Amino acid sequence: MKRKLRFGMVGGGNGAFIGNVHRRGATMDELAVLSAGCFSRNPEKNKETAWAWDITDADRVYTNFREMAEKESQRNDGIDFAVVVTPTDTHYEIVKCFLTHGIHVVCDKPLCYSLDEGIELQKLAEEKDLLVGLTYTYASYAIIHQARKMIDAGAIGEIINVIAEYPQDWVMLSLLNSSGINGQWRMDPARAGGSACCSDIGTHLEALIGRMTGLKLERVLARFNHYKNSPLEHDVQILLDYENGIPGMLWASQVAAGYDCAVKIRVLGDKGSIEWNHTNPMEIRYAQLNKPVQILTANRVYCDNTCTNLCRLPAGHPEGYYEAFANVYKSFCKTLLAQMEGAKIREYHYPTLTDGLAGLRFVQACLKSNASENCWVSLDSL
Amino acid sequence: MKRKLRFGMVGGGNGAFIGNVHRRGATMDELAVLSAGCFSRNPEKNKETAWAWDITDADRVYTNFREMAEKESQRNDGIDFAVVVTPTDTHYEIVKCFLTHGIHVVCDKPLCYSLDEGIELQKLAEEKDLLVGLTYTYASYAIIHQARKMIDAGAIGEIINVIAEYPQDWVMLSLLNSSGINGQWRMDPARAGGSACCSDIGTHLEALIGRMTGLKLERVLARFNHYKNSPLEHDVQILLDYENGIPGMLWASQVAAGYDCAVKIRVLGDKGSIEWNHTNPMEIRYAQLNKPVQILTANRVYCDNTCTNLCRLPAGHPEGYYEAFANVYKSFCKTLLAQMEGAKIREYHYPTLTDGLAGLRFVQACLKSNASENCWVSLDSL
Amino acid sequence: MKRKLRFGMVGGGNGAFIGNVHRRGATMDELAVLSAGCFSRNPEKNKETAWAWDITDADRVYTNFREMAEKESQRNDGIDFAVVVTPTDTHYEIVKCFLTHGIHVVCDKPLCYSLDEGIELQKLAEEKDLLVGLTYTYASYAIIHQARKMIDAGAIGEIINVIAEYPQDWVMLSLLNSSGINGQWRMDPARAGGSACCSDIGTHLEALIGRMTGLKLERVLARFNHYKNSPLEHDVQILLDYENGIPGMLWASQVAAGYDCAVKIRVLGDKGSIEWNHTNPMEIRYAQLNKPVQILTANRVYCDNTCTNLCRLPAGHPEGYYEAFANVYKSFCKTLLAQMEGAKIREYHYPTLTDGLAGLRFVQACLKSNASENCWVSLDSL
Amino acid sequence: MKRKLRFGMVGGGNGAFIGNVHRRGATMDELAVLSAGCFSRNPEKNKETAWAWDITDADRVYTNFREMAEKESQRNDGIDFAVVVTPTDTHYEIVKCFLTHGIHVVCDKPLCYSLDEGIELQKLAEEKDLLVGLTYTYASYAIIHQARKMIDAGAIGEIINVIAEYPQDWVMLSLLNSSGINGQWRMDPARAGGSACCSDIGTHLEALIGRMTGLKLERVLARFNHYKNSPLEHDVQILLDYENGIPGMLWASQVAAGYDCAVKIRVLGDKGSIEWNHTNPMEIRYAQLNKPVQILTANRVYCDNTCTNLCRLPAGHPEGYYEAFANVYKSFCKTLLAQMEGAKIREYHYPTLTDGLAGLRFVQACLKSNASENCWVSLDSL
Repeated sequence: MKRKLRFGMVGGGNGAFIGNVHRRGATMDELAVLSAGCFSRNPEKNKETAWAWDITDADRVYTNFREMAEKESQRNDGIDFAVVVTPTDTHYEIVKCFLTHGIHVVCDKPLCYSLDEGIELQKLAEEKDLLVGLTYTYASYAIIHQARKMIDAGAIGEIINVIAEYPQDWVMLSLLNSSGINGQWRMDPARAGGSACCSDIGTHLEALIGRMTGLKLERVLARFNHYKNSPLEHDVQILLDYENGIPGMLWASQVAAGYDCAVKIRVLGDKGSIEWNHTNPMEIRYAQLNKPVQILTANRVYCDNTCTNLCRLPAGHPEGYYEAFANVYKSFCKTLLAQMEGAKIREYHYPTLTDGLAGLRFVQACLKSNASENCWVSLDSL
Repeated sequence: MKRKLRFGMVGGGNGAFIGNVHRRGATMDELAVLSAGCFSRNPEKNKETAWAWDITDADRVYTNFREMAEKESQRNDGIDFAVVVTPTDTHYEIVKCFLTHGIHVVCDKPLCYSLDEGIELQKLAEEKDLLVGLTYTYASYAIIHQARKMIDAGAIGEIINVIAEYPQDWVMLSLLNSSGINGQWRMDPARAGGSACCSDIGTHLEALIGRMTGLKLERVLARFNHYKNSPLEHDVQILLDYENGIPGMLWASQVAAGYDCAVKIRVLGDKGSIEWNHTNPMEIRYAQLNKPVQILTANRVYCDNTCTNLCRLPAGHPEGYYEAFANVYKSFCKTLLAQMEGAKIREYHYPTLTDGLAGLRFVQACLKSNASENCWVSLDSL
Repeated sequence: MKRKLRFGMVGGGNGAFIGNVHRRGATMDELAVLSAGCFSRNPEKNKETAWAWDITDADRVYTNFREMAEKESQRNDGIDFAVVVTPTDTHYEIVKCFLTHGIHVVCDKPLCYSLDEGIELQKLAEEKDLLVGLTYTYASYAIIHQARKMIDAGAIGEIINVIAEYPQDWVMLSLLNSSGINGQWRMDPARAGGSACCSDIGTHLEALIGRMTGLKLERVLARFNHYKNSPLEHDVQILLDYENGIPGMLWASQVAAGYDCAVKIRVLGDKGSIEWNHTNPMEIRYAQLNKPVQILTANRVYCDNTCTNLCRLPAGHPEGYYEAFANVYKSFCKTLLAQMEGAKIREYHYPTLTDGLAGLRFVQACLKSNASENCWVSLDSL
Repeated sequence: MKRKLRFGMVGGGNGAFIGNVHRRGATMDELAVLSAGCFSRNPEKNKETAWAWDITDADRVYTNFREMAEKESQRNDGIDFAVVVTPTDTHYEIVKCFLTHGIHVVCDKPLCYSLDEGIELQKLAEEKDLLVGLTYTYASYAIIHQARKMIDAGAIGEIINVIAEYPQDWVMLSLLNSSGINGQWRMDPARAGGSACCSDIGTHLEALIGRMTGLKLERVLARFNHYKNSPLEHDVQILLDYENGIPGMLWASQVAAGYDCAVKIRVLGDKGSIEWNHTNPMEIRYAQLNKPVQILTANRVYCDNTCTNLCRLPAGHPEGYYEAFANVYKSFCKTLLAQMEGAKIREYHYPTLTDGLAGLRFVQACLKSNASENCWVSLDSL
């Protein structure tokens, strides 16, 4: 009988919702078990989290990630991969540490802030033949894979335009919240890598476009908008230039009152278009010139295997955000298990270091464009 | 440190999706651990399922439910509750067995087919002071609890009408499916208790109306429609009479081509109305006379605690069917844990035997009405 | 050069919105000119309306409909048809009068209250070879004709069910309105023919189903609900039996708080279904088993001529309620003009006396069913 | 008794749908009568159109606009205003001619191409105290006026962002159409004033934003995208800078496959937001921080008079594109009638020459920005 993968988690014990999202996602499809962790610097919280998440072996609840990497790498039943859910400014050190110890990694996005550090991590992973996955959630909904398959098959003809947006209002709500700002480090210029909105949710759009189209981004022209004199930008409006002169446009905002993670993408071709809205995450709108508009749903017989493989419920039963996360983990674990057996997996795709680096380049280019009177900045120039 | 509840599962090992829905639901909120099971009569499947679901103690993988009830009831670390996910015609025996052994139960709906057997189970549970929960999923979405609170508080005035529907097309798709019918027992008159659509999904609507309004159903007038000479009905159209002469109307269909679990309910009052659609399961539409229509979302600060307690993600992150199931389990476990500690829980509500018996009465009355030229049948007359 | 038709109007001058709806509808497509009228018993209002609607010949503004029928029938340039927009209890006399004088008629629905009177009108029209059109608006939206063509062509297979609803809240709003009830005669039992909701809007659904499916209604089982002890019913819930045992269900309500003319119909077949919502009146949802759902829009090249003939604007430009009315008039006028030339029109369909009589039978049968403990009543028995 | 206004039309007789849209709009509310026209250079079409539109006096069907201006200005019963619906490159001469003859004008948008010519027309109108209205349709839907009133009253706090879009696919459909391109002059660089998409529909968005917010546009940064090497752009992506540094973003496309006049605007403030979609043209979505989202409908008692004055039907009865046009004419005619009587009208607003000039400046600035590597261009610099 095949074994399950074992994983350990760094972070996630501070009541931040995202830790549990990772845990539930990683374990949802019976491919992996949480076996170790270093959930919080607060020893009490660390223990509590371990108990809540059924880690029965107290030896495997660690006080810091270095100890965890070291000890787990020495065990026969050590973890196969580490899950990193700490604030972004800590990612580089932690990911590097696990890779150095020969342990695969799934890291919350963005990978880190510095392009150089990102490139270093990529080299390290390649040298050690280790997998690194990144949880770009929106790019991981099942139906997005259906869209990609259709686009690759010519369903919309040649792509001529891409329009993407991500409005939300969490920054406004946080500022109103008397009990303080959630995710405060995100608002701290010293810890946020120079960008709030672009780095946090702009990259989600950039990754989503990449996943859905396969197009290479060449240039950006970005404007960053600052809310109420915030030092960091909370709204970005960006013109995009993809390969072959294909234009695109992107809006991301953390100060769009009345919108909640309202991600929307439209890929427009010369024969048709595909639209996806996060408010109905299991379906796409597919339009062809002079034909009735079609609505496709993820878990239907007419979908491609790359899509239905990521569905767990019969049509009509809504899957949501947890399942999108689980899709990253399912794809990552299936790939890792196949690699262990020397096989190849074709139907499962998860965001990799390549996607992570593309995200870093995107943010760097946008920062530069915004700082240069919104001129065009080539990603290759970075 | 408080302990988690332990549970065992009967059924769920045959690849039917619903077993895993129960397991994921029961464990989602870190309140319970799957500790034992008897998942399939097929020993291989039984073992495989136990492995997949991380039951490490082989002694607690049982070959039949009686053995499981007996042995678990004798262990110090025995299960606190049993989860029953077998076909409906087996529920009565299994639930009775666990109750007899002093073990609480969560049972897939409907409870059973015979009203007498249902009443017997209720008596047994009362005598032994045991909890029985039923997984009426649609009644368990977080926002439904918000709707009930608002209705109780007079948000729509006096209720004057209830319109509910549940169209789906799975029977048509199953008949088209060359690899055979899913859930074949549901189509077998000998095993389905005399009703397919009314018992399976009609009861979901009856329970949903009950949960959302608190109204007592007094009379029904039902027509059963048979698809292509099917021995069992796959479409029901029912007039309802609630207490105080409040009318209602219900349509449930398993042969509504192009609809997937498209549950919709409208509760209409003399000052306003509330509407819920399963296609957007986290929100309700609230209309007042001469005022703008409002859209409320489950995980928002303006919601009642009974609603937000059942949300796991910030607004904008879709929760779905698994989470609705998890809501039953969270409410059940919170109540059971409180009972163990002698405390009382007010904010958590799960469908109980009272709801289960109401469902049985509803189906019996509908069967009788349909058999009597669609006359009115009083539920008290049964 | 072909001439335009001339028409006169009876009623419409009391500020009721429906008079102007008829006028705008009748003249929209340059097929007819308002040439005479008797708009109000109030001489001032009568004149004002004539002026507003550009009747330049004062001789053709009449004080009563009998005078108008007589004088117009004697003129060489007399009206070709009369438009009757008075309260329903006056329809019979007025329609009869114009038919007797050899003048075609378009009458607001319902035709009248008494089945006998309706039959008499039909005989009269047949004897005189005169056209009578009825303004069943919802049945006259362009896309409804597309739906019918598709259904006739087998797009959804055999029809197995029809679900229709029409919730609105105007009665509630009227009761709240300090300046009095709009359309007060509709609330007066002495003038409303024994039915408020069933006769006014229930018949819209009955006609819409008929137009969309072509099915013959055989039996009804109706429950009438009375709001706050109103003498007339303002909510009806009806089970339907169409030919060949095809079931249907209908809900109409004038006391559904928060809903505005929210007509919705679903025609369900054994291969697919078609749904129409008045909230998006130019499109239908077409679903086939195991295929993506399609959204069809009225004014597209893929539509049948019977549909596109009734569209005036390019796709994307919303047409609404006035245009639905205009569709009745366009179809009526095209047919009348063709008849005058001895030609035949195939692409234009308007609601006729046959539809009007079907509506009367429907209401009579519902009244009888409701009065007989909601038993089934056959329409042929009336 | 007050008289109706008389108007004449230039153009509209070539079967282009827009002529009839103007006529129906101008006459809908019983404020004006079509009394003269010069509909086509083709004498046959000219006559046919006059007949279809009920111009009974053959003397008032003119062969060219100069003759019409001259003769009508000499009649006692001459036209009060001229409606200009010819291709844009002819507007300047025609509008100038009527103004010169002392006749008010309603002109299809855009006013013309050259800013200098526009300024000249404005001066002329001012000198002669004549009204000029422009048919910016989308800015004229009733609910847009409701939105403006709410925004002025602080409903969304300070405006911090504006996002607007207008995707359609008519250019693609026209290119596919074997019978030739509709509106061919729009595709002809020699006649289109240097811009296709920006001038035709980009200006609709610019005017819509202006109407809804009252904000003054200061700078633009525009990219024009050319479809399949078309000499004119058919897609524009524009960053906007409004007064006080308020950012905005605009996308207009004539090559967005599968979208029909899908205008959408979101005005975002620091306390809430308002969204309007042309697909549901009678309603807006109004969101406030931490409150349920509201849906407002145009013809409701809670709306401001500036909105309800432009509604003709009870709530629930859809009004559409014709009515939006009629709103321009109703507002224009009410203002003109009031001016004739020396009164002042406050509740009616129509797009004026000021709006028309703003549109010209916008297009000129966008053209310049696009030609200058997408740099920022100030509107005051033109």
